[in-house]
Order: sequence, then structure tokens, then C-alpha cells
Amino acid sequence: MAKITSVSPLAPERFPDLPVIQGARFATAQASVKYKDRTDVMLAILDPGSVVAGAFTRSATRSANVLDCQAKIGLSDEAGAAIIVNSGNSNAFTGRAGDESVKAICEEVASVAGIPATRVFTSSTGVIGERLPHDRITAKIAELHGALDETAISNAARAIMTTDTFPKGATATADLPGGQVRIAGIAKGSGMIAPDMATMLVYIFTDAKLAQADLQAMVTRLNDKTFNCITVDSDTSTSDTLLVAATGASGVDGNLPAFEDALHSVMKDLAHQVVRDGEGATKFVQITVTGALNDQDAKTHALSVANSPLVKTAIAGEDPNWGRVVMAIGKSGAPADRDTLSIRFGDVRVATNGWVDPGYREEQGAAVMKQQEIDMTVDLGMGQGTATVWTCDLTHGYITINADYRS
Amino acid sequence: MAKITSVSPLAPERFPDLPVIQGARFATAQASVKYKDRTDVMLAILDPGSVVAGAFTRSATRSANVLDCQAKIGLSDEAGAAIIVNSGNSNAFTGRAGDESVKAICEEVASVAGIPATRVFTSSTGVIGERLPHDRITAKIAELHGALDETAISNAARAIMTTDTFPKGATATADLPGGQVRIAGIAKGSGMIAPDMATMLVYIFTDAKLAQADLQAMVTRLNDKTFNCITVDSDTSTSDTLLVAATGASGVDGNLPAFEDALHSVMKDLAHQVVRDGEGATKFVQITVTGALNDQDAKTHALSVANSPLVKTAIAGEDPNWGRVVMAIGKSGAPADRDTLSIRFGDVRVATNGWVDPGYREEQGAAVMKQQEIDMTVDLGMGQGTATVWTCDLTHGYITINADYRS
Repeated sequence: MAKITSVSPLAPERFPDLPVIQGARFATAQASVKYKDRTDVMLAILDPGSVVAGAFTRSATRSANVLDCQAKIGLSDEAGAAIIVNSGNSNAFTGRAGDESVKAICEEVASVAGIPATRVFTSSTGVIGERLPHDRITAKIAELHGALDETAISNAARAIMTTDTFPKGATATADLPGGQVRIAGIAKGSGMIAPDMATMLVYIFTDAKLAQADLQAMVTRLNDKTFNCITVDSDTSTSDTLLVAATGASGVDGNLPAFEDALHSVMKDLAHQVVRDGEGATKFVQITVTGALNDQDAKTHALSVANSPLVKTAIAGEDPNWGRVVMAIGKSGAPADRDTLSIRFGDVRVATNGWVDPGYREEQGAAVMKQQEIDMTVDLGMGQGTATVWTCDLTHGYITINADYRS
Repeated sequence: MAKITSVSPLAPERFPDLPVIQGARFATAQASVKYKDRTDVMLAILDPGSVVAGAFTRSATRSANVLDCQAKIGLSDEAGAAIIVNSGNSNAFTGRAGDESVKAICEEVASVAGIPATRVFTSSTGVIGERLPHDRITAKIAELHGALDETAISNAARAIMTTDTFPKGATATADLPGGQVRIAGIAKGSGMIAPDMATMLVYIFTDAKLAQADLQAMVTRLNDKTFNCITVDSDTSTSDTLLVAATGASGVDGNLPAFEDALHSVMKDLAHQVVRDGEGATKFVQITVTGALNDQDAKTHALSVANSPLVKTAIAGEDPNWGRVVMAIGKSGAPADRDTLSIRFGDVRVATNGWVDPGYREEQGAAVMKQQEIDMTVDLGMGQGTATVWTCDLTHGYITINADYRS
């Protein structure tokens, strides 16, 4: 691993205080899967009655863990559940050995925790194509189970990091008719980040009470507006996993818009933190497309801009190069009309109806580009479709990290 | 423009000797559109009876010049034709002013050369969104016309360069039943290069005799195997133009496979030279996908690998990171089966049927990655579909050029 010595300049000031989620307990350990002198495995145990919903990478070469989790989502929710995650090795593209590793880990967790193996969810993140030394993990499960603690979620956020420069956490509460419920989530991910989804592992816990099908529907809706709207480098991991567990311990019904809003805020916060830890990132960029024929076209355009190396290097160079935005809109494949296209950088109107805005002066655009957080808006002037996505710039730091790190 | 002081390490040893193509004459001039102290406009005049075929960017925001050329391809071929190209300003996203510039240039060329304006093809390359100072070009047309010379094609190759570090030319002959015919072509392009097509201008001339429809069909077929199979950075220009002119001066029928083979070799050679001048490139990479369900799927997979920033940075770092190739296959959207996937770097089999090859040793892969020209082959083990594409690595040089250069 390339030595990442400094924290991203876009990192939040501090890790948030995450509340206890009744019915969920956490533990971490040093299994030395690959990293030394740090924790690299985390276990979460969910009380009986918990439901688990999820979203996963659509990669055709997804890992054994992802395939196993997908098969288990939606099964019986009476027996409790476990989530076990290791960093350092992704167990992806490891053939039949990958399936064996997942099975061995699930069986050991099931045996120690006294829950069915069908309720054990695993994730692995790190190098692709090397056999996961799962014995090192199974050897730690009894220790992990003995150390479970409802306050240890912040340790879990650290154990799942790979090239991340900071741990990622987010929280929200929702005041519902039945009382207050709490949500706490953690995430890892900083490279190979693109929709469907990112190299990203995300675990969110709540004490709200929901049926699995209702929670799953909510997670699917929100995922399309959060984790599937971020991109660092357009590359999609083979391991992306989002799990949302509702323990129901509060007894409060969460199948309500106010809960969905709170869950949305946690998912968006974590998604933004993943972009803020984009490899080599120095700018956080929000790209909004309006006036498309429909929302899907708007998202296609927005992601085309967000993934364009020429746009991203211009941002790195603080160059208000709106011509490259035009280029990226033009290549996206979705309909656009050169002569109704308008672009704003921040509040500055740089192009209107297909040409540079008559009032635009280069120094206005340059001032926006010097900011650490940049808003770009493209109006297509064709319809009512809108989308917002988030990305970062493409810098020498990205090259340095990825020309050396064996991921 | 960032100062590009050194020639790409992947450049051919020298510019080829291009033969005279009877019926085609060339001239260049210093119009000072943007660059000083160098030629920046070239004029080619084609004798009456010449036919012109073409292929163009599919960008929705393509330039006024491209729209104008597309409207003219296939029109009457009795009156001769002209091609006029400037560098320094792309006349793209310049609203109605862009159309006016094209019209002014076409009318002046038509007037001076005595051909209809409908037979004048224009291209512009350089900065987007700034009004083309076309008066500087029209002021030079009489001078250009007076200097026309059938041996001046190599000067034309230089006049159309922007960030190119070397001029690009290629030639071939074909011995046909009616006699020998000659082909000579020039190209520019080194950034914003991706299929459909690249920021790329290509002009190819032959003295073979073909009907316009036959030449157009041939160019469309060959374009899909050459210029639409290269990518530097996945970004697509608003100005990409390929024009192929057949003067017919040899009197030899060229609508034959042997001529198509020769034209293919010229187009492939120029396409490779564009990749070899990729911004910041230090490696020339050929990616072949076999065993896909069909050729289109194979191309989708090959371009996904070729465009992946993580694959390209691994190549820059000489890291035989085949896991990133798996990732890129997985994200492409085309069908793949993890457990029938095999990968070779050069002649070294690195992965077989979904996992690292039992005989593979890391130093074998590392030795291949140290080469300047790298072949990667991915076999999907599913069907008979194949495709080959070409790309380069992603280096600090790309970031340096594009974080500063205002294109």
C-alpha cells in the first residue's frame, strides 16, 4: 500500500458522536489479514427481530461475499443477524476458494453467536485475486464475540478502512408519532468509486421498527439518490455493499416519510464523505443538471461531466474551462441541444443558450474555481428532468496513489 | 497552452515520405488565429471528379464546422473540392457566430478557388467557446491558393497540430488489376481522445477511382475498426473529423478488397499514432478481448478496460495488477462470467478460469509491464466475439498538461 501520510483536505473536522443503537453491538480485532499493527476485522451482532436490507455492486465479476449477501437479504428475520467485515483482502476473483472462505467465516460466526449461517453477512475489502486467509479471521471470532459492546461502532469504522485517510460516520434522529428513533452509520471507500456502486462498504443501524420489504424499498430508493450519485474515478468495485439493519428495539414504527428523510440524510452524508476522501482529491464538486428531457437523462449528463478526466483536471488546475463541460455533455449519449445549453459555476453564469454569457468575465469563473467546494449547474433548456451528483478533482495525488498501490 | 517541450517517447522515428497524390495540392500559412510564429492553417484543393467521404463525432454539442461538413458529404462530385483547416480555435460552442465563421470561410475559398461553397469542407481545432477570428483566415486564402503544391502535404500535417508532440503521416500503395494506386494521410490529436471519435482531425487522399457511396461505405466500415477503437482519456471532442478524398487521377478502380486493405493500414497507422501522442503517454497498450458473446460485447469490454483510470495508472506504475482488469470487465455492462475469465499480459497467462493461473509468478507479469508496448488479452470463455482496441497509460504528464492547458 502506498503510504498515505496526510488526511484529505476535504475531511470533516471530526468523527461524529454516534449514538447507541439498541439491539446492535460491535467488536473489532487485529486478525493480520494483511495489515499489521491495526484492527482489520469488525463484527456486528443484531438482536433477534432485526431486519436487514441492502444494495450491492452490479459488477459481473462481483466477489463471493457479495453474491452470498445478495442471496441472504430478505430471508427470515427472527433469529438475529451478524455482519462481519475484514479489510486488506477483498476475496474477489478468487474462484471457488472465495466461496469456501465465505462459508467458513459464516459457519464460525453462526456457531459462536448461536444464529443460523443464513443470517451472517460478510464483506471483504482490499486486494483482488489473492486467496483470503480466512483462518486468521475465524480464529478471532470467539474473541470478537466476547468483546461485543454497544458503544464500539466508531472502532468498527476504523477497522474497515483501506486507503481511507479518515474514518467515516454519520448519524440522525427522527421524531416519529411513536417516539424518537436513532440512526448511526459507518462507511469506507476512497478509490474505485463510481455508481453501481463505489468501492465502498456502508453499514447503517437503526432502532426503528420496519418490515424487511419496507426497509428494502426505502434503501433502494435512497441509494439511487446518494451512493449511486457519487463518482471519484468512474471505476466500479467488485465488492460494493450497503447494509441497513433495523433492530426494532425502540418499538417505534419507522415506515414513514420522516424516517426516510433521516435515513436519507445519513446516506447522503456518508456518500459525501466517501467523495471527500477520493484518492488525491482537493476539491468537492456538486454537479446539478436541470432542464433535461427526464431525470434519467439528467443523471447521465451529470455523471458524464463528473467522470470526465478533462473536466476533473481543469478543476484540479482551478481553470474555469466551461468548454470541457460542454464536451462532456455532448459525449454523454443523452439528448442535448447546443443552442439551449447554459452553464453556471457557483452563482456565475458562464454560458447562456449555447455561447459564453455576454456578462461573463473570466476572473469571475476563476474565483469560483479557487474554492474548495464548487457547484456547477448545467441547464439543458429542454424539459423538466433534474439530477445532482458529487465528485472530486483528478490530481497528481490520484496518480501517485494508484500507480503504486496494489489494490 | 502548457509548454510541451519533448516529443512523446512513443513517437515513430521519423515522419514518413508521403507520395504525391495526383489531383490533390496543398498549402499552409501563418494566420495567427491563436499561435504565433508557426503555420496554423492548411488548404487542400482537389481536382474536379474527386469524391469525398467522411466520419464525424457523434457529440450532441459538435461544432459548426462538423455540422456543415456532414451536410455536404455525398453531394455532387463534379466540381472539385477544398478542405481548409485551422488550429488554435475549434469554433465549437460559439453559437450563431460559429455558423457565420464557417460560411465566411467557405465563401472565400469558393470564390478564390472557383468551386461551389457546397464543396468546401472546413475543420477547426483548439480552444472551445471563443469566437473564431475568421477574418484572419479569409485574409490568407488568396495567398494559400497561390502557393498550392502537390508535395506540400507534410507541411499540412504540421499546420494542424495543437498539443501534438509530433506530426502524423501514413502511406500505402495497392497493386490493383488496373494498376498501382497511392494513399497518403495526415492526422492530429493527442488529448480528448475517445471513440465517436477522438479530438482528432484526419485527412486521407488517394488517386484511386471510387464512387462516393462505395468510398463512404468503406470508410464507415474501417472507421469502426480503427479510429473508433482508440481511447486516450474517454473524452470525446466536439470537432472530430475524418475526411477521405479519392481524386480518381490514376484512373484505377479502387472499389476492391485490396484497396480497402491498404486504406485500412493507413487508417490504423494514423489511429495508433494518435494514441502514441496521447497526453502524457509513456506506454502503448493493445487490449484484445476474445470469447465474448459477440463482437459488440467484446468491444464494450475492451473499451472499459482501456478507459479505466485504475488500469491506466497501474500500467503507468508498471504494476501487473490484473485484478483491476477484472474490475473493468465486471463494470462494463456487457455479459461476463467470473469463473470462465482468463487474462494474459503479453505471452504470460496471469489468470485462468476466474483465478490467478497456477503457473503465474508475479515477476513474469512485472517483466511485461516494463515494456513500452504492452499487449493485454482477456478471454471471456463465453462465445466467439472479439475486438481489439488501443490506448495508453495515465500519468502525471496527463495531469500536468490538462490542469494547465486551456483547451
